[in-house]
This record gives sequence, C-alpha cells and structure tokens, in this order.
Amino acid sequence: MEEIRNLISQLKNLEIANMYNNDFLLTWEKTDDEIHAVFQAADIIRKMRENNISPKIFESGLAVSLFRDNSTRTRFSFSSACNLLGLTVQDLDEGKSQIAHGETVRETSNMISFMADVIGIRDDMYIGKGNTYMREVSKAVKEGYEDGVLEQRPTLVNLQCDIDHPTQCMADMLHLINHFGGVEQLKSKKIAMTWAYSPSYGKPLSVPQGVIGLMTRMGMNVTLAYPEGYGLLSDVEEVANANAAKCGGRFVKTNSMKEAFQDADIVYPKSWAPYAAMEKRTALYGEGKFDEIKSLEKELLAQNAKHKDWECTEDMMKLTKEGKALYLHCLPADITGVSCKEGEVAASVFDRYRTPLYKQAGYKPYIIAAMIFLSKVKNVPETFESLLSLGASRFSGK
Amino acid sequence: MEEIRNLISQLKNLEIANMYNNDFLLTWEKTDDEIHAVFQAADIIRKMRENNISPKIFESGLAVSLFRDNSTRTRFSFSSACNLLGLTVQDLDEGKSQIAHGETVRETSNMISFMADVIGIRDDMYIGKGNTYMREVSKAVKEGYEDGVLEQRPTLVNLQCDIDHPTQCMADMLHLINHFGGVEQLKSKKIAMTWAYSPSYGKPLSVPQGVIGLMTRMGMNVTLAYPEGYGLLSDVEEVANANAAKCGGRFVKTNSMKEAFQDADIVYPKSWAPYAAMEKRTALYGEGKFDEIKSLEKELLAQNAKHKDWECTEDMMKLTKEGKALYLHCLPADITGVSCKEGEVAASVFDRYRTPLYKQAGYKPYIIAAMIFLSKVKNVPETFESLLSLGASRFSGK
Amino acid sequence: MEEIRNLISQLKNLEIANMYNNDFLLTWEKTDDEIHAVFQAADIIRKMRENNISPKIFESGLAVSLFRDNSTRTRFSFSSACNLLGLTVQDLDEGKSQIAHGETVRETSNMISFMADVIGIRDDMYIGKGNTYMREVSKAVKEGYEDGVLEQRPTLVNLQCDIDHPTQCMADMLHLINHFGGVEQLKSKKIAMTWAYSPSYGKPLSVPQGVIGLMTRMGMNVTLAYPEGYGLLSDVEEVANANAAKCGGRFVKTNSMKEAFQDADIVYPKSWAPYAAMEKRTALYGEGKFDEIKSLEKELLAQNAKHKDWECTEDMMKLTKEGKALYLHCLPADITGVSCKEGEVAASVFDRYRTPLYKQAGYKPYIIAAMIFLSKVKNVPETFESLLSLGASRFSGK
Repeated sequence: MEEIRNLISQLKNLEIANMYNNDFLLTWEKTDDEIHAVFQAADIIRKMRENNISPKIFESGLAVSLFRDNSTRTRFSFSSACNLLGLTVQDLDEGKSQIAHGETVRETSNMISFMADVIGIRDDMYIGKGNTYMREVSKAVKEGYEDGVLEQRPTLVNLQCDIDHPTQCMADMLHLINHFGGVEQLKSKKIAMTWAYSPSYGKPLSVPQGVIGLMTRMGMNVTLAYPEGYGLLSDVEEVANANAAKCGGRFVKTNSMKEAFQDADIVYPKSWAPYAAMEKRTALYGEGKFDEIKSLEKELLAQNAKHKDWECTEDMMKLTKEGKALYLHCLPADITGVSCKEGEVAASVFDRYRTPLYKQAGYKPYIIAAMIFLSKVKNVPETFESLLSLGASRFSGK
Repeated sequence: MEEIRNLISQLKNLEIANMYNNDFLLTWEKTDDEIHAVFQAADIIRKMRENNISPKIFESGLAVSLFRDNSTRTRFSFSSACNLLGLTVQDLDEGKSQIAHGETVRETSNMISFMADVIGIRDDMYIGKGNTYMREVSKAVKEGYEDGVLEQRPTLVNLQCDIDHPTQCMADMLHLINHFGGVEQLKSKKIAMTWAYSPSYGKPLSVPQGVIGLMTRMGMNVTLAYPEGYGLLSDVEEVANANAAKCGGRFVKTNSMKEAFQDADIVYPKSWAPYAAMEKRTALYGEGKFDEIKSLEKELLAQNAKHKDWECTEDMMKLTKEGKALYLHCLPADITGVSCKEGEVAASVFDRYRTPLYKQAGYKPYIIAAMIFLSKVKNVPETFESLLSLGASRFSGK
Repeated sequence: MEEIRNLISQLKNLEIANMYNNDFLLTWEKTDDEIHAVFQAADIIRKMRENNISPKIFESGLAVSLFRDNSTRTRFSFSSACNLLGLTVQDLDEGKSQIAHGETVRETSNMISFMADVIGIRDDMYIGKGNTYMREVSKAVKEGYEDGVLEQRPTLVNLQCDIDHPTQCMADMLHLINHFGGVEQLKSKKIAMTWAYSPSYGKPLSVPQGVIGLMTRMGMNVTLAYPEGYGLLSDVEEVANANAAKCGGRFVKTNSMKEAFQDADIVYPKSWAPYAAMEKRTALYGEGKFDEIKSLEKELLAQNAKHKDWECTEDMMKLTKEGKALYLHCLPADITGVSCKEGEVAASVFDRYRTPLYKQAGYKPYIIAAMIFLSKVKNVPETFESLLSLGASRFSGK
C-alpha cells in the first residue's frame, strides 16, 4: 500500500493536463511526462488489483472495439482493461453492421458513441490507412461532442495501426523498467531491434517502428537491424534520430544482425514486411489488382527466404552482453521446429525466456487501463487516492 | 435536478400499471399515457446520466438480443440502454446455436431466458413474419414464467419488425418534442412522411408505418406520400386514420412529393419497398423460389428507377414552411453523390441537418432504456426518486 | 431465508478444501462431499436470486469461454452464471484470433488469462481430444500462475468434452433431487439411460457417459440400454460399475430398451454415436481422410436406421413405474413428427413433460455458478453468510 501511495505521489509531479479528454495514437505525440504517467498509472492499477482493490471508475459505459485484423492478446487486453475500470466492451463487427450501405466514417463514429467513453481500434493492414482512419474517427466524435450530439467525448486508444503499436511498445517498456529495476537503469542499455526470418508474409511494421520511436527516448542505445530492402517508414526513423539526439542516447542502423546483437542488453528479433512492398500492396489493393497482389506475395516470400540466417539462435545469443540479453517478442513468435520449419527464433532460446515473455505480455492490459484512466480522469492522483481510501474489493469472497 | 424532479412528478399523473411486466411491440397497442410515460422516462434517464447520476437498477441480469438483420445503431442503442440499467447483453447468434437442429421457438425462448430480464429482437425482413415471431417468443416466455420454469418474465422490446419500428419512431418523436419545445407544440404541425428514391432494394416498411401510426396521435397533420404502387400495410393506414380522427389531427395520402412538402414543418423522405412486392417476395421465399426472387428484385429496382425525381433536393426544401422544415431520417441515408449516384437526399440538404439528425438518433438509447425501465419496474416514480436520492455516480473519477 | 441458512449450515459439514483453486472436469474426480457441495451451493445461489439477493462476488474479472461446437443452452447458462457472480464473459473466437499462426496451447492459455478468473470450454467433437485439451489449458495456466505470469489461477469448467458433460449431468441430478424431494429419495430408484433413434449423426457420448458416471453414486439402479454396437467408453462403464459396488446401487447393461424402461422411475432416452465409430472418425479426421469420413457417416446413418424402434413412445412409457416415470432429456430432443419424421420421442410424451424438462435445463446456470463459486472462494459458508447479511438487491426497482 505504501508502494502504491509512493507511486501516486510521483504522479503528482508530472504535467499531464493535456492527456485529459484526449486520444493515445502515437507515443511520440506525447511528452515525456505523459509517457511516464502511463507507466506510473499502469503500475498503480496493477498493484491495486494485486492488493484486491478495485480501480473501477465507471458504474456503466461502453468501450467500443473495432478490430480490422485478427487479434487474441490485444483483444483480451483491451477487454480486461475496460472490464477492470467498469466499462463494457461492445464490438463493432463491420460484417454485422450497416456500414456497407455507404455510411460515412463521421456518421458511424457518432452513431456508436452515444454512451461510449472509449474507442479502441486495430487497423494495421494498409500503409497510410490505419492511423488516418483513427484520426477521422477521433475528429468525428470530437465534433459530435462539441455539437452536443454526444454527452461525452469518446477518447481513442490505438490498438495497432500502420505506424505505431503504442500499447505493445509501452508494455514492452514497462517490462524493461520493472525487469531492470527502474527507468533510470535503462540509460545506455543497448537494445537490438532486428528483423528476423519468418515463412509468413506481410507482418505489420508497427512493432519495430513503435520500438525505435519509444525506446530512443529513454537514453537507450537502440540498434535497428534489417536486411537491405526491409526499411521502415522514414518519418519514424527520423523520430528515432531526433529522440536519440535529445535524450543522450543513440539510434544506429545496420544490415548486420550480428552487429546488433553484439553486447546487447536486450534483443527484439521479429519479422516484418518491407515498407516499400507494403506501400505497393496498399496501392494494388486500392486498384483492386488482386492477381498482382498474389504475385507480390510470392515475390516477398522468396525475398524473405534469402534471409533465413536472420534467426535468433543460441549462437546469436552468445554475442549479447554476457550471453544473457533479455529476449523480447510481441508474440506469437515463429519458433523454429515448433510453429514452423525455420523461423524467427530457436526453440531453446524461446523456451528459456518463456516466463519473462509472458510477463512482458501481461503488462498490456495495465498499459491500456492506464491510457484510458489518464484520458477520462481530470484529477488523476486525487482519484487514485479516493479509490484507495474507498478500498472496494475486486473479489469479495472470504 | 429540479428539472428531473418535475419530470418525475408529471409521471405520477400517468396511468401506466399495465406496462409493468409487459412487452413493447407496437406503439398503437399502448395508451396515450403509456406513450407519454416512455418520453418522460427517457428524458429523466437522459438527464440523470447528464448529471452523472446512475440509473442502474440491475446488479446483474441478461438482456438477450437477436438480430436477424444487420444493425449498427439499433445494436449499439440496445447495448447502451441495457448497460446503463445494469444488464449484460448476450447475443443469440443463430449461426452459433443449435437452433438448426429443429428446436421450437417455444423451447429456445425458454432456454435462453433463465436469467433474462429483457429480450430485444430485430426481425424485419419478411412480411407477416417478424411481429408474429416476437409474439411467439413473448407467449413462450410468459408461459415459462407462469409454469415456474423462469424466475422472472423476460419482457420484449421490438427492435424493428415488419410492421413497426417503435424504438425508432419514438426516438424521432422525442426529438420533435424537444426540438419544438414540448409535445403541445406539435399540435397541427405538418409532417411529410414521403417515399424517396434509392438505388437499393427491399428496405423495410416499418419506419413509414411506425411514423404514421405514432405521429397521428399527437394531433399532427401527417401527410403520407408515395408513388403509385408503394402503398403500406393497409391495417396501419387504418390505425393512422383512426388516430387522426380521435386526436383532432389529419392523415392525408397523396402521390405527390411536392404536395407533401408544401408548407411542411417536418419532412421525413425515405425509401421503402412496395408492400405488395414484399408480400410476394415473402411467399416466394417460403416456396424456395430463389430465381423468381432475383427476377423480382430486378423488377423492383427498375420500378424504383422510374421515380428518381422523388429526392429531397434544395428546391423541394424551399416548398416547406419558410423553407426551413426540420429534416428527419432514421439513417443511414442514401445521399446523392456521396453514398450513391442518385439517392434520397441532396448532399447539401443532408449536410445542413447533420447535427439535428445525429441528435435524433441519440434519443434511441434512452427510449429503449425507458421501455425496459417501465416494463421491469412496478413503482416507477418511487424508483426514480430513490435513484435520485441514492445519487450513485455513473463516473466516479474526480 | 431460513431455508438458505439451513443449506449453508449443511455446507459446513462437507469437506471441500480441495475444490478451492481447482478445476471441474469430470464428476468422478470429485468426492461425494464435493458433489453434494455443488448441489447445495447451486440451491443456495438459486434461492438467493429468487429472494432478490445478489450473490455477486466479483467487482470485475473475465470469464473466458471457448466453444468448439455450437451451443445455445450451455452458452447462455455459462453467461448467466458468470453474470450473476459479477464476471464478464469474453469469448475466445478462434476464427478471429491469431491462433492459426501456430501458437501453442500453453501460450494462448496464458495470453487470454491475465485477468481471467474462469475458463469454460466445450470441446466434444473428437474422441480423446476434448478432455485432453482442457487438461493442457489447465496445466498451462496453473504454471503461469505459479511462475508469476498470472495474478490468479483461472479455474476451468468443463462445458462438455468427449468424456463427460458435468454441468449437464449435475443439473439433471439436481432436478431429480428437487423433484423427488431430497437426495436420499433417489436411493434404489431405477433410471433408464437408453439410446434412442435419431436421423442425425455423430451426437456426443458425453451425456450418457456423464449420467452413468454420476447417477451410480447415489445408490440408484442405473440401467444402460443400447443396440449392439453403440457401447460407451469402457473406462466410464468401469467407473459406473465401481460406483455401484461402492454405493449399494446397481449398474446394469442391456440391449433391450423395454428391459430398461420396465418399472423405471426415470427414463433418459437419447441418441448417441457408437464409440468405436467415433474413434474411427477421429482417426480419419487426423489423417485428413475426408472422403472416408463421408462414407463412415453414411454407414452410421444406415446403422442407426435399423433401430428406429428405439423410440420413447406412449407404449414404452406404460412399461415404467405406474406408467409415470419422469422423462429426462438434455434438449434439444428429436421429436417424432415435430423436429423430424421419426425420432427419439413421441410428441405426446415430450409435450406432457415439457415443464419438468425446462425446469431440468433451468438448473444448469446454477450448477455452473456453484462450480465457479466453489473453485474461487476459500471459505464458502462464511462468504454465503456475508452475502446474506449484506443483502444487496439483484434488482433495486421498487
């Protein structure tokens, strides 16, 4: 309890007024104070739950979810976070709705939001589309609120777009903070965000982009490695550069996985699709050229196959700091000999890190709950203190 | 708060005993007092929520929803209303159930209702079917309750059938009441419920039927306009006639959209399918004659296309009272040049009325909540007063 | 209330410590005290709800459901039970998840469980698979809990597997207990669990297996009847034999439906697939031999058709004790002339027993709630007493 009170005290020193009634779309749109507030709030909510204190602030209210891509852990994380705060998730299943009738984004956004406090969207399939769509929705409901159509402004949480995956990367970071014993311990730590081979095709770029956009803010030494042709969105690489310059860290690019792993404290080997190819695919999709998309997929798989040596093997791990770098993955991983013949990571490496990997994933519900909390609550420390004083049990069995 | 107390006082003068433990299937089955009680209760619940007072009356309980047609706004409205009162929506997805095994309506209705307080059904596709089905379900669960199978009687809310769309039309009416400053202001107002061209096919008749069945009760001058061959269910037209006679209003039919718009205070231009054709389609469906259904659809689209001049243009709007009639639509509208090449309404007209249109839609969750409240609560004013005294916050953040 | 207090008192005499933080997979893994505790707890929860006292013990928390087969009543029962206790159901829809990516059971189980208190699974399609899968999930989340990945251990409820259908059979038994006026009244009662003809194919064996595995524990005289070739899993028949020997009851097998019905107090005529054929089908499925599966299905339907005389007709009912045996079915039943041309039961028999059949089904939500309650609550009687003292209304309308 003392620990929770300390965390609340620290929150008081952060300037977070601008988070109130606002969205969470890209980490680099948020100030350092705002980013740290999410971590603090996430840990407060986690420790409240561990101490059987309910952080419920909503007696009723909807959290709308829209998943335009398959999802297990993000869906369950969003659901868990909303449930913990008292919101009920109502899924907008576009297949079951009338949206096909030619309804505009503006209209749908308002129509689903009369009692919506939060909207969570995953839209990561097409370059230039997902984040844009989220902003359209945000604008629409903001206007709806200002025009008196909506009684409250539903705030958005980006559950993965074409640019960033903030709930993932913030969970990754909170895992690092707690693993290494505090954010200040991350300074100068080397993290290798590297491409890895996978037999599957077209994985989003939002995780590596999110990682270089966020981790460079903490004074870390971020090395991004990928085979030639697998570059990320250049805007985000610029963000990473600027962050590093500002925070006294480094942002280095290389085409060698070994160079990235060398002396790394943390490794994050993960497959993604080449940005240029994804852009092409999006264009073909827009033009309805499905045959050419199929050819492109074949091409890309063949291109991937040239880089099967980009695997996180035991030998690669030996290159890292004392051979013991912390291995990260957003899951599910393509594990060699387990989920595929040849993949991103050797089974023995993956197995050794299973528990920390699962813990890494376990931060996501709390990160999402914190984002919602900070966007809906005006006076955050006071509200946490009030919840603590109230001390309602999450589980009231004896 | 004073305003809420006034509304509660007014409720005390209405005779609503018969709403308790009863369904809401057709507006014309309800007395004037009962109709007004829904409006009062909806406004009370709305104002409670606006003042952050939770109207939750259920600590637990299911609200079963069954959507046999696509739905966005009604689905979210139902979900919002149930959530606000404390009920959890459990969707009966017929695809995922065992109903195909040849189970009877009577059996399924009881099987899903052991802890169901409310059942909401949308079944609007086939003439003579939807409302009939709702009554079968209602009868089944009423018997289940009387036989001691169910601990409570789940009451039904018609979320759109082949005959009426009460949650829509009641929301439309509450919008009019609040827009014009009170129900007494509606007396003698002219409303034009008119057909409009749409390139799509087979839209339900329940909205125009619901409108003429309800609006004629308020002493309004209701003009129903449609091209020859687009008549509504004659029973409902008779209801409208009887209402008008009784309430000192008028119910006029015409085949001229212009005549309807002339001096109208309110216009509601909307596409629907011809009743006779829908009846034929239902019969063909029953006989499994799918080829003939396809021919019928083609025929109907061709027939529609003869009436492209039935559009709510700027010129048409100029015919209305001071050129400023209130434009209504249940949404989504077929907007010319936006959602289709030629449609029900000109983009400029639609745009000018966007905010009132969204507000119109925003009443639906409260209408549904009021219908549920009035069907589940025995002493309505006392319960509202008790909720007000309790003053539980919907959102307890500071 | 006095009645509820009596039931709680009786609970105090049962040894149920081992149920805490444990799963409910097979009834024969549970002691007699544990089985009786479920019945007591179910009746306590039922009577609390009937007296408008909320048994809610969770302020928040997820109940994950995974249905690998269609379901109406079990889905709604699980949903009702969870809702009554305060849990929100989050469905794991494997079609919408990333599980196809080759994720392991261990991983998925942990990923969905960060805030899950309960996991309910139906997996009854393949011999040797369903129960095995449940145990894998259970092991995974138990390890996750022990490794600090999960804050709580999600306990499993078997919502039907290839071996047992405990929530169904326990509901059947509670129905018998309340129908006959107490568990001691069941001693020496004859129950005929018999195969019956159905034109459909491949119905699970879990109901008859569950029935003989459970009912033999109560000193009942259980007669299992089926045409040659329709035997059950031999392990379960051994369980039934051992139970009967231990409890002073009988377990008799026969190939004559008449012999089973003769002087029976209770009859449970129901179709199922032959165990050997289901085993073969599972093997063919594993080998991807879909053509051979089709041939097998045809064969089995032809085999079924030889036993159309296995129907619960009025004449058959006359053989039972005073012609008035209680008729049971897990529903939906194949009713001759109603849901099929020739089926398991004559329409007039089914109709006469409709109300008790629906009541039988109505126990399932309470059985599930009791299983959850007993697995999550450490001090069960104290918690019930505390809920009773608190006396929170489930419905607070006046």
